[in-house]
Amino acid sequence: MGEPAGRGPDTLGAGHVLGVDSGGSGLRIAVARADDAEARPLAVRASDEPVRTGPAGIDAEHLLSQLLPAAAELARETGADGFAAVCVGAAGMATLGEELRARLPDALATAFGVRRLALAADAVTAYAGALGQRPGAVIAAGTGMIALGTDLTPAGGWRRADGWGHLLGDCGGGAWIGRAGLEAALRAYDGRPGGSAALLARAEAVFGPVTGLPGALYPRPDRPAVLASFAPEVARCAAEDDTVALGVLRAAAGHIADAAAAVCPPGAGTTVACTGGLFHMGEPLLAPLRTALAERLPDARTAAAAGSPLDGSLAIAAALARDRLTLPTDRKLLQITRPAPG
Amino acid sequence: MGEPAGRGPDTLGAGHVLGVDSGGSGLRIAVARADDAEARPLAVRASDEPVRTGPAGIDAEHLLSQLLPAAAELARETGADGFAAVCVGAAGMATLGEELRARLPDALATAFGVRRLALAADAVTAYAGALGQRPGAVIAAGTGMIALGTDLTPAGGWRRADGWGHLLGDCGGGAWIGRAGLEAALRAYDGRPGGSAALLARAEAVFGPVTGLPGALYPRPDRPAVLASFAPEVARCAAEDDTVALGVLRAAAGHIADAAAAVCPPGAGTTVACTGGLFHMGEPLLAPLRTALAERLPDARTAAAAGSPLDGSLAIAAALARDRLTLPTDRKLLQITRPAPG
Repeated sequence: MGEPAGRGPDTLGAGHVLGVDSGGSGLRIAVARADDAEARPLAVRASDEPVRTGPAGIDAEHLLSQLLPAAAELARETGADGFAAVCVGAAGMATLGEELRARLPDALATAFGVRRLALAADAVTAYAGALGQRPGAVIAAGTGMIALGTDLTPAGGWRRADGWGHLLGDCGGGAWIGRAGLEAALRAYDGRPGGSAALLARAEAVFGPVTGLPGALYPRPDRPAVLASFAPEVARCAAEDDTVALGVLRAAAGHIADAAAAVCPPGAGTTVACTGGLFHMGEPLLAPLRTALAERLPDARTAAAAGSPLDGSLAIAAALARDRLTLPTDRKLLQITRPAPG
Repeated sequence: MGEPAGRGPDTLGAGHVLGVDSGGSGLRIAVARADDAEARPLAVRASDEPVRTGPAGIDAEHLLSQLLPAAAELARETGADGFAAVCVGAAGMATLGEELRARLPDALATAFGVRRLALAADAVTAYAGALGQRPGAVIAAGTGMIALGTDLTPAGGWRRADGWGHLLGDCGGGAWIGRAGLEAALRAYDGRPGGSAALLARAEAVFGPVTGLPGALYPRPDRPAVLASFAPEVARCAAEDDTVALGVLRAAAGHIADAAAAVCPPGAGTTVACTGGLFHMGEPLLAPLRTALAERLPDARTAAAAGSPLDGSLAIAAALARDRLTLPTDRKLLQITRPAPG
């Protein structure tokens, strides 16, 4: 395969880079200049349609059918002559991205002269968005929950905790909190211990009579999202001092802090950053989380994330274009690929 | 519709009755004499093919296509001239059996001259099999877990606790125990607190490297059964004194006893019966369960179930044929239907 017409040579740090963030709520794509150390987005495209995943993983065809036209538009809009590097961050990349690994390098090389490509788990783009290329730990929590940390040494690599999904873990994430809240509602309905009349009232307000809840939940393909949709009601009941709801959020905070402590590199002043929609729940979760983190990681500093996973994807692409990528590479979490020379 | 040819009149307590037990592991059908107070099975047919359920509930066509030929064979085998009464006990009857309620009465009247039909939730046939028509409580536990009790008064009716399925409850059942065991295995893998190296070793022995566990579990339609398949490994680790596994089974026993206590009628000497595959786990579960039941229901007597849900289905059919059914009727749990007069 020859060099695509009209592309310049692979000059270090010149030109533009593309960052992609593919998740449950859709696809986001942005362009930055490769020589911008902060990799600020010049232009962004977002689609509400999540990329499909099947038994064989992320649907590469579906991703490419959205990515290539949007990237072409962004190139025209920013005057980019192809892209020096691309980072694709995606949920499920770690375990489900085989087809993508096989097809993406050539597709991007052909369309945009891309020579450097990073495939990243969404936890890695969340890390890069939150902390850049500093050592530390990120807690990424929405429907699920995962913690990822690194000391930036090749020997240390990435440390990952939880992120096992709603049946095996994701302890303290949105589905976990919502599920615990619904269980407490049904305990109240049954007259079992551990029930909360306030949560039962909220469950009936949201879902109707609870006897219909199993029939409404189990046939749905998006059960974790349905469970997570009840998490804000748990926060609301906790804010009104419901003992059971307070206990659910205290337990969630403990699980989240446990995961952070399992991956955070040692050393005073290490930063632990929180990112993701779960933290929009505010003080009912954040107050017990500060307490739990202070107990487990007394020397660490807790910070809000500096940027989003899309910012992290752009930062990785820009660092890759300038040969300045210091985050650890890893077959499952952050893989750098280059198409075969033409 | 006229009286089918060759059927006698609906003579109280004469002839034969049919009992049906439809569950996740297949369909079981048996015949007894209506005048046998113990309703002992004269002949039994079993099929390994579970009756299908869809969004509209139990697939009535699929049930009838298995039930009618098997019942005809049983009638020939036992010399039954039709059936005086039939009881169909089925999982999901309470919430999912609308089509069945609509079609079964006429189908059985046409084929076997059936005039009295009981549609029962599987928890009710479990109760009748375990306790007959005595007041008390039954704990039915396999993959799931439900407790059902009655004082036999019409005002008291049935009391039900849990049985909400693997995401909303079924606390202490097989899927609950297996899930908790797998979570502990992954905690050990991650280095989070609450982990068990013994459970991690068992999880890898059963399912292979745990990094493949999410991909193996989440796409399957029978996730609760997959989780429950790990419950015996938790019992094995508990028997070898693994602290985490012991804690999982102690918590499971507490949840089961909580459900029993929520439904058990008051009064000294009331019987609490345990039935279902979960109790085959033996002492690792039974020992903490005895302790938990003694704490919560000090005046109750714990007993093994006298018979199976199929026995219970036959007992209900025989009592119905003799006008001796004293178990409470209830639109969702035990419904008596009679076809319109011909």
